[in-house]
Amino acid sequence: MDDKNISHAVITRLPRYYRYLGDLKDKGIERISSQDLSKLMKVTASQIRQDFNNFGGFGQQGYGYNVQYLYDEIAKILGLNEKHNLVIIGAGNLGQALANYVNFERRGFIVKGVFDSNRELCQRKIRDFYVQHVDKLESFIKENNVDIAVLTIPKEGAVKTAEILAGCGIKAIWNFAHVDLNLPDSIAVENVHLSDSLMKLSYGIVNKKQHK
Amino acid sequence: MDDKNISHAVITRLPRYYRYLGDLKDKGIERISSQDLSKLMKVTASQIRQDFNNFGGFGQQGYGYNVQYLYDEIAKILGLNEKHNLVIIGAGNLGQALANYVNFERRGFIVKGVFDSNRELCQRKIRDFYVQHVDKLESFIKENNVDIAVLTIPKEGAVKTAEILAGCGIKAIWNFAHVDLNLPDSIAVENVHLSDSLMKLSYGIVNKKQHK
Repeated sequence: MDDKNISHAVITRLPRYYRYLGDLKDKGIERISSQDLSKLMKVTASQIRQDFNNFGGFGQQGYGYNVQYLYDEIAKILGLNEKHNLVIIGAGNLGQALANYVNFERRGFIVKGVFDSNRELCQRKIRDFYVQHVDKLESFIKENNVDIAVLTIPKEGAVKTAEILAGCGIKAIWNFAHVDLNLPDSIAVENVHLSDSLMKLSYGIVNKKQHK
Repeated sequence: MDDKNISHAVITRLPRYYRYLGDLKDKGIERISSQDLSKLMKVTASQIRQDFNNFGGFGQQGYGYNVQYLYDEIAKILGLNEKHNLVIIGAGNLGQALANYVNFERRGFIVKGVFDSNRELCQRKIRDFYVQHVDKLESFIKENNVDIAVLTIPKEGAVKTAEILAGCGIKAIWNFAHVDLNLPDSIAVENVHLSDSLMKLSYGIVNKKQHK
């Protein structure tokens, strides 16, 4: 399957499809028409068909989609059929919360270690992990086949740390630091800028209308 | 100023402008041309001018933007010149992390209380707050002039809780629950679906290319 030219907008919608299909599956629903899926998800049926056509369609016109099949196919496209090892860098509040969030592991994202640059935090235990000093990051990443680094550190150290991670051959960075990273295109980056999100909410209040 | 017809895409970019302008301001830079801002932010100068034209331009052609003025104007558009009181609903890992995250308060988002439906968590102290039972939410919101509810609870309770909040006259919901909320348009909603973000990262690994 050639996913190379799928637009970012389509990819952004895939996890939402995956979530709704998971809910349908949990309710024991085996088939769903694009019309019914459209009503449920509040997007047009034509949008759904267009999105799925990027991946060969999945569909059976007039017969509906097989929920389990569609769920599995989207999982494959998203790479959820593989396990990914991750490290969390930054043992503050957010890093601790993410380390303790077991739902990610159910999806195949396995926390392997927690790191911090503050030696006072090292040897503190978070879940099953002793916080390690970032000095050990490079060897740890190589020895533990780590794909993903989660950056939950202040913006000041984030750009430099991301460069070190790139040098270690990391494949992806989940960036919670409030700064844009400059990395080679070969490294996947997802930014979660919580302050940006909160500002959009503030805008929404001022303008008294919903925007998603 | 009539912001009513500003596109969602423009609004989504405003916090990023605000962040870069804040950094420039911190470095003591007083003026910047759209060309220099363009290089810094890696967006076209024409995009920047188009975005700012939505708000009357801010600009002085050939002279550059006044950093402080632009920063203050964007803050006003985003409603950051007002304080917003918020409550956190869900005293788990993420709720605790957000309650402890003091940076939001610097931007005018003031945590007033933390709530949970689990009576065993009530009276536990998070930062300066004793966790309160959600039974007290309605009166608390009214008495404390709360604008924003942060939902850090599992998806099962989130839809119902959001409806209760709507009934209390809440103005905005910052939704971390892994479910879409159905609320009147008068309530601003920002979703932070961490699992969706992680899935996009996984897609990025599989497809070995960066997408932001």
